[in-house]
Amino acid sequence: MFMPDAYKELLELSKEIHTYNSVLSLLHWDQETYMPSGAITPRSEQIALMSSLVHEHKTSRKHKALLQKLVHFGSGKPKHKGFSRSQVVCLREWHRDFLRFDKLPASFVKNFSQITSEASQIWSVAKKSNNFKLFAPFLKKIIELSKEKAAIWGFTDHPYDALLESYEPCMTTARVGTIFQGLRKELVSLLKNIRESRQIDDGFLRKKIDQETQVALGHSFLSKLPIDSAYSRLDLSAHPFSTALHPHDSRITTRILPSGFMSNLFSIFHEAGHSMYEMGLPTAHWGTPLSEAVSLSIHESQSRWWETLIGRSLPFWRAFYPSLQKALPTQLKKIPLERFHRAINRVEPSFIRVEADEVTYCLHVILRFEIEKELISGSLQVEDLPDAWRAKMKELLGVVPKTDSEGCLQDIHWSLGDFGYFPTYALGNLFSAQFFATFAKKHPDWDKRVAQGDLAFVRDWLKKEIHSWGRTYNSDELVKKVTGKPLSEAAYCSYLKKKYSEIYNF
Amino acid sequence: MFMPDAYKELLELSKEIHTYNSVLSLLHWDQETYMPSGAITPRSEQIALMSSLVHEHKTSRKHKALLQKLVHFGSGKPKHKGFSRSQVVCLREWHRDFLRFDKLPASFVKNFSQITSEASQIWSVAKKSNNFKLFAPFLKKIIELSKEKAAIWGFTDHPYDALLESYEPCMTTARVGTIFQGLRKELVSLLKNIRESRQIDDGFLRKKIDQETQVALGHSFLSKLPIDSAYSRLDLSAHPFSTALHPHDSRITTRILPSGFMSNLFSIFHEAGHSMYEMGLPTAHWGTPLSEAVSLSIHESQSRWWETLIGRSLPFWRAFYPSLQKALPTQLKKIPLERFHRAINRVEPSFIRVEADEVTYCLHVILRFEIEKELISGSLQVEDLPDAWRAKMKELLGVVPKTDSEGCLQDIHWSLGDFGYFPTYALGNLFSAQFFATFAKKHPDWDKRVAQGDLAFVRDWLKKEIHSWGRTYNSDELVKKVTGKPLSEAAYCSYLKKKYSEIYNF
Repeated sequence: MFMPDAYKELLELSKEIHTYNSVLSLLHWDQETYMPSGAITPRSEQIALMSSLVHEHKTSRKHKALLQKLVHFGSGKPKHKGFSRSQVVCLREWHRDFLRFDKLPASFVKNFSQITSEASQIWSVAKKSNNFKLFAPFLKKIIELSKEKAAIWGFTDHPYDALLESYEPCMTTARVGTIFQGLRKELVSLLKNIRESRQIDDGFLRKKIDQETQVALGHSFLSKLPIDSAYSRLDLSAHPFSTALHPHDSRITTRILPSGFMSNLFSIFHEAGHSMYEMGLPTAHWGTPLSEAVSLSIHESQSRWWETLIGRSLPFWRAFYPSLQKALPTQLKKIPLERFHRAINRVEPSFIRVEADEVTYCLHVILRFEIEKELISGSLQVEDLPDAWRAKMKELLGVVPKTDSEGCLQDIHWSLGDFGYFPTYALGNLFSAQFFATFAKKHPDWDKRVAQGDLAFVRDWLKKEIHSWGRTYNSDELVKKVTGKPLSEAAYCSYLKKKYSEIYNF
Repeated sequence: MFMPDAYKELLELSKEIHTYNSVLSLLHWDQETYMPSGAITPRSEQIALMSSLVHEHKTSRKHKALLQKLVHFGSGKPKHKGFSRSQVVCLREWHRDFLRFDKLPASFVKNFSQITSEASQIWSVAKKSNNFKLFAPFLKKIIELSKEKAAIWGFTDHPYDALLESYEPCMTTARVGTIFQGLRKELVSLLKNIRESRQIDDGFLRKKIDQETQVALGHSFLSKLPIDSAYSRLDLSAHPFSTALHPHDSRITTRILPSGFMSNLFSIFHEAGHSMYEMGLPTAHWGTPLSEAVSLSIHESQSRWWETLIGRSLPFWRAFYPSLQKALPTQLKKIPLERFHRAINRVEPSFIRVEADEVTYCLHVILRFEIEKELISGSLQVEDLPDAWRAKMKELLGVVPKTDSEGCLQDIHWSLGDFGYFPTYALGNLFSAQFFATFAKKHPDWDKRVAQGDLAFVRDWLKKEIHSWGRTYNSDELVKKVTGKPLSEAAYCSYLKKKYSEIYNF
C-alpha cells in the first residue's frame, strides 16, 4: 500500500488522539457512575489535563506540517496520486477537523471553556430556583462568544450555519428551516387529530416498581437486543447516556424512576442504539475517520431506531411482552398486548422535551431551533427569551409552562455553549424513518421476524448500510446512498400518520 | 515563600506526572472491576500510551535541566538557601527518583517491559498447567535483566541491594538477612509449640454463604472502619487490591469465596488499611513527595495493622461480633466470641502464601527472600528452583507441595520482574508491630476503646504519626522517630508469642 512517512506519522497521531479521547471517555463515565462523590476536584483536574493534551496534539505545528505535506490546504485534496480510497477519505476528514480546530485561537478556546464551565454550574442553580435572571448574563455572554465563533469559522448565509456544522456538517440553516417547516405543519395537524380522539389510559405504567426489580428488568431487556455483552455494559447514572471507548468497549447507563419502569427500558433501547452504532464501526480502522460516527444526527437516527421504530412497535412487543408480563405480573398480568402497546405510545403535549412522545418530540426541537436562530442573529434578546418560549409553546404544543425551570431553563445545552446541537435530535428521527422505509422494502417480512424475537438481522442491515462506512460519506451522501433520496420529512410523517391513526383510531 | 521559577515549573511537572499516574490507576482499576471482558486490547493500548507519556515526562531533558538548576546532582542538596524544609524534602526526593529513572536506558526499559509482559502471560499458563519448564526460560531472561538493572543502578555489597531499593529504599540485603534470621528462629520455634498443642476447629467458618449476603456483609463491615465513604468505594475483583487516584478518591476491592466469608472481611480490612494511608496523605501537597507513601513496607504495615493487629484482635470482635452473628445467624448464633476469635486465628502451615496465617506468613516470605538472593547472585540456577523450593518448604514450614503450581509458580511477582518486592511483605508486619507497641503505650486503654467500637482514634494516631509525613522521612527515620528504636523483629515476635500462647494455651 502507498504509505509515505508523513501519512504513517499522521495515522499514528490520529490514533494517539483517539486513545487520549478514549481515556477521557472513561474519566467521564466513571464520574457519572462509580466515582466517590468527594472526588470531583481531582477529577476536574484529570479531565482538564487530558483535554489540554488532546487540544495540543490536535493543533500542534507537527500536525499541521504533516497535513501540509499530504493535502492541499483549503480543498483537502491529496497532493500525491496513489492513495487508496480510504486514505483519501482520512486525509479529507483530517484536513476538515484540523482547519476547524486550528481556526479557533487558544485564548478563545480557553475563555469559552471557562465561561461555559461556570455557566453550567450557574444554570443548575438557576433551574433549581427557577431564576432566569441569574442565568441571563451568562447566556448573553455565551451567545456573544458563539457569534464570535461563527465569525471565526466563517459562513455565507446565516451565522447559525457555522454552529450547525459542528454537529451536522452537511446542513444549512435554510435547509433545516425548510424541512422543519414541513415537519411542523404535519405534526401540528397530527396532534390536532389525536387531541380530538379519545385519550389512552396508561395509569398501569406508572405503578411503583422497586429499584432491584427494575435493574434486573433492564439487564434482561438489554440481553434481548443484538448487542455483544463481551464488549458492552449497563450501569446506573443520574441521566442516561452512552459512551464508547472503542468498538470493543461500549458503555450505556440508565436511570430508575420508581413510577416509570418503561422510561428505564426506553432509555436502555435508546442508549443501546447509540452503542450498536459505535460497536458497528470498523475496528480495523479504529483511530481514524473511517471508524468515526458521521454526525450527531446519524447517531441519533440509530438510537431512535431502537427506542422508537423497534422499541415502541407492536412486532417487538409481540416477541417480548410475555416476558415483561412475567417479570411484572401484578402490574401487567391482566393487560393485553394491544392495550400495553397503545399505552406506551400515548401522545400528550407536555413541557419537558426529554419526556415527550414521538409526535410532540420534534415540536420541542423545532421550538429550540427557531429560538436559537433568532438569538444568534440578534433578532431575539436574552431578556425576551422566557416570553418567546411561552408563546412558541402555546403555538406549537398548545400548553404553556408556569415556570422557566419547566420552560427555557430545562436543557443544559445552552449553558455548555452547544448552539446548533438541538436540530440533530429531530433530524435523527427523520433519518431513521427514511432509513427504515428502505429497510422495510429490503425485508418485507421484518415485522414477522421481529415478532419472533429475531433482531440480529436488523442490526446487521444497519451495520452494513450505515455503521461500517464511518465518515466515508457525509449524512447527505449516506442517506442518498442508502435510500436513493435526499433527506426529507416525508418518511417520518407518513410513519407517524399510519401508526397514530391506528392507535388513536382516526 | 521562596519559590524560584525553576521550582515552580518542577512542582507543576510533578503534579502533571501524578495526574497522569492517577489516570493510569483508573485504567487499571476499571480493568479489574467493570471493563467489558472483550476490551483488553484497547485497554492495553491506553495503558501503554499513558505509561510512555509518564516515562517521557519523568526522564525529559526539561526535567533534568530544572533539577540541575535547583540541586547538586549526586547529593541532592539544594543549590540555594532559602528553601523551606518541605521544599528541601521535595528536591531531595525528586532528585532521587529522577536519577533512578534516568539511569535506565529507554531501550532497556522497553525490553524489560516487553519481556515481563509476555512472561506474565506465560506464567499464567504455566501455573494452570503445572508446567515449570514452560516458564523457566522466561524466568532466566528476567533474572539476567534484573542483574543488568542492578549493575546499572549500582551497589556496594550485593546486587540484590539495588533491587530492594525500588521497594524499600533504606534497606540492604545484609540488614534484611539479619532481621529475617532472628525472625525465622522465633517463628519456627513458635510454630513448633503450636503444632504440639491441640488444633483449633474452624469448620464453622467454612460454611457456604451466598454472594449477595457476603457483599452486604463487606459493605457493612467497611462502614465500621474509620474510612470516609465520600472519598472511597468498595467493589469486587478476581484478586483484592487497593488503589488511590488521590486522597479523595480511594478504591478497594475484595473477592467472594463461597466457603470463606472471613477471607472477604480480612481482605477488606487489609485493603482499607492501604486506603487509609493514602487518604491520610496531606491533600495540600498532593502531586509531590510530601503526599506520597514512604515505601511498600510502610504501606504494608498499614494494611496489616487493620487486617491483623486490629482485625483479628479480641477487642475488635468484642465490639462487632454481635453484628456478625446477627448477619449470619445460621452459622454463628451458637458460637461464642472466644471460640470465634480462636478460629479466625487458627495456625496451620500451608503451601500458599496469600492464605497463610500470622505465624507462618513471614516464613513464606523468608523462603522467597532466600531464594531470590541466590537466583540474583547466581548461586541457584533456575532449573534447580523447584527442588530448592521444596527443600525450603520442608525446612521452614514442614510441608511440601506436590506441584509447582502450589510451589514456586504460585506468585506472579517474578514474571513481572519484581525481584526485591517480597521482603516488604514481612517487613510490613515488623513495622506494624513496632508501631503498635508505641501506640499501645500512648493509648493504654486502646483495647477498651476498640471494644466499644471506637476506631477513629486509632486512625488519627496513624495519620498524625505516619501518614501526614509523606516521604519526609525514610522508613528507617520514621520508625526511629515514632518508636525511638530502629526496626527489629522483637515487637512482632513478642506480639505473636503473647497472642498465640494464649490462643493455643501453651
